[in-house]
Amino acid sequence: MSTAAAYALPSADGSFEKVAIERRALGPDDVAIDIKFAGICHSDIHTARDEWGGARYPCVPGHEIAGIVSAVGSSVRKYQVGDRVGVGCLVNSCGKCAPCLAGEEQYCAKGATWTYNNPVPEDIQPGGYTMGGYSTHIVVDEKFVVGIPEGIGLDVAAPLLCAGITLYSPLRHWGAGPGKKVAIIGMGGLGHVGVKIAAALGAEVTVLSQSLRKRDDGLRMGATNYYATSDKETFRRLRGEFDLIINTVSADLPIDNYLRLLALDGTLVILGLPEKPMSVTGRNLAGFRRSLSGSMIGGLAQTQEMLNFCAAHGIGAEIELISADDIDSAYDRVVASDVQYRFVIDTASI
Amino acid sequence: MSTAAAYALPSADGSFEKVAIERRALGPDDVAIDIKFAGICHSDIHTARDEWGGARYPCVPGHEIAGIVSAVGSSVRKYQVGDRVGVGCLVNSCGKCAPCLAGEEQYCAKGATWTYNNPVPEDIQPGGYTMGGYSTHIVVDEKFVVGIPEGIGLDVAAPLLCAGITLYSPLRHWGAGPGKKVAIIGMGGLGHVGVKIAAALGAEVTVLSQSLRKRDDGLRMGATNYYATSDKETFRRLRGEFDLIINTVSADLPIDNYLRLLALDGTLVILGLPEKPMSVTGRNLAGFRRSLSGSMIGGLAQTQEMLNFCAAHGIGAEIELISADDIDSAYDRVVASDVQYRFVIDTASI
Repeated sequence: MSTAAAYALPSADGSFEKVAIERRALGPDDVAIDIKFAGICHSDIHTARDEWGGARYPCVPGHEIAGIVSAVGSSVRKYQVGDRVGVGCLVNSCGKCAPCLAGEEQYCAKGATWTYNNPVPEDIQPGGYTMGGYSTHIVVDEKFVVGIPEGIGLDVAAPLLCAGITLYSPLRHWGAGPGKKVAIIGMGGLGHVGVKIAAALGAEVTVLSQSLRKRDDGLRMGATNYYATSDKETFRRLRGEFDLIINTVSADLPIDNYLRLLALDGTLVILGLPEKPMSVTGRNLAGFRRSLSGSMIGGLAQTQEMLNFCAAHGIGAEIELISADDIDSAYDRVVASDVQYRFVIDTASI
Repeated sequence: MSTAAAYALPSADGSFEKVAIERRALGPDDVAIDIKFAGICHSDIHTARDEWGGARYPCVPGHEIAGIVSAVGSSVRKYQVGDRVGVGCLVNSCGKCAPCLAGEEQYCAKGATWTYNNPVPEDIQPGGYTMGGYSTHIVVDEKFVVGIPEGIGLDVAAPLLCAGITLYSPLRHWGAGPGKKVAIIGMGGLGHVGVKIAAALGAEVTVLSQSLRKRDDGLRMGATNYYATSDKETFRRLRGEFDLIINTVSADLPIDNYLRLLALDGTLVILGLPEKPMSVTGRNLAGFRRSLSGSMIGGLAQTQEMLNFCAAHGIGAEIELISADDIDSAYDRVVASDVQYRFVIDTASI
């Protein structure tokens, strides 16, 4: 075992404080990583503030982790000390179920082990539950570590480990590319990465955002069109327009209005999880053979593919770098949608 | 123009009565058909009793039409007098939009012309709206006429023109076949044809019906499994089981319960249109990349493919043959789910 410094929330309504945590001893398949940067995902906030229930304290969030390999176990073949690597939302899965065998470990039938706040045996994580990336180092099985290519800064790569793969996976699964019209709902931490990736894949990209406030940014990142959803005319104008709509917004949207923007065989994919059930009118699906679907991050092989793709296309997240002392205020600003576009913790400040 | 005998509803709360209607003069592309059999679809009832609004009277329903060609226009090449033919839910479309060009005329962007109760110019249909198959004959553009192969009786073929293609199209679109587990919700006019077709396509078929009352029929028609949805254990036992679920029921079902029965990348397709919007929890979609989709009949080329497939596999609908005088009571029995499995009008009785 080894000791790491970390920033933890001691209770749902507490403030982040520096703590010492234990990381497990390096096993033969493990990679020890000096964490350099950790992104702040909205899920971190939901979990740490116990808005989804089941939080364990002290809670060390963080599943957008970028760093440098500091040691490798005796059986590790993929990585060497000094390699640039990342860890995303999951750190283990059963490896034997149909989703795992299909390389979709995030849908593991037995339940993947999430990077933080996930109960696990003491020998896997001292304390009995996982602790995430707001920390100086972490020990992870090499199968759940991905390489970060030269050509992306570790700081702007960190958010790709969750936000990047969350967008890349459905864009690829539902065939975003040349000749396809793709809309991205929401221009936040997820949405802005989606615009960049969808454009780089060759799709014609439209942003559907509440207002036109971030329009210049959207166009700069690769969008061809940018419409305000507060303008009812948007929904008339774009009826039947899109092959694929990716909803990055967790708020309760009028899903029927967006379904009607889909062309024949179009798909609306939800990534955020609205609090309330969605209301869906059958006619909006059957009338044009449309689909309402959901997607959750991506498998390890596809996460590596995404990082390689982003490096080849010069794609990183747009970030505001903060020190660990600023996590509380960053959380408040994320909740207020006041971030352009992702907070990343410089873990040197821990 | 020519005169045909038909059975029409004079008003939403009236009873069917025999009337004389006008069919248009045979145009160069038209086929005149002596109707032999006409199936009764639940849509006929919704429309004729004005439950969907917009009904025009006298209303002559019927879009499951099987008969014999009695005359052909000068340009007709596909059919000859004496051919066994069918007409389904649509009798025209724009032919130029993306769905039409893709052979999906039922999704015509300008709106397909439905076989009955659809407003059209007087020169296309005397009276200004289409009249359907509860009649002695009909005149239809050859593009919207399909051939009924030898080897299916015209009586059991009639329901295939709507019920058959309504099931065949999504089963093909979503890849029902060997190695796939397919569930059919509802064992009625649509469902029983779905069981036969899905089994003939090589899928493992499960029926999800309210009770086990029609279990023997379901197994005889090709289902491997048959479960009652009134038994809560069904939803526990079958969690994550199916690649494809086809919902043939128009009633308001607890869709979330059925979504949870889907495996990774599974799709639940609704065919009936529930009155109320469906309530869908995001987690049930995102957790396993599931889809909720809709489908509406099928294109003309696929309708022909379906009839050829059914003929090759000896598939027809299971029917109760009735005379035109029995339409009113047949309607009441359909509403009461008291039909095994489709009423078909012998139009010789008109």
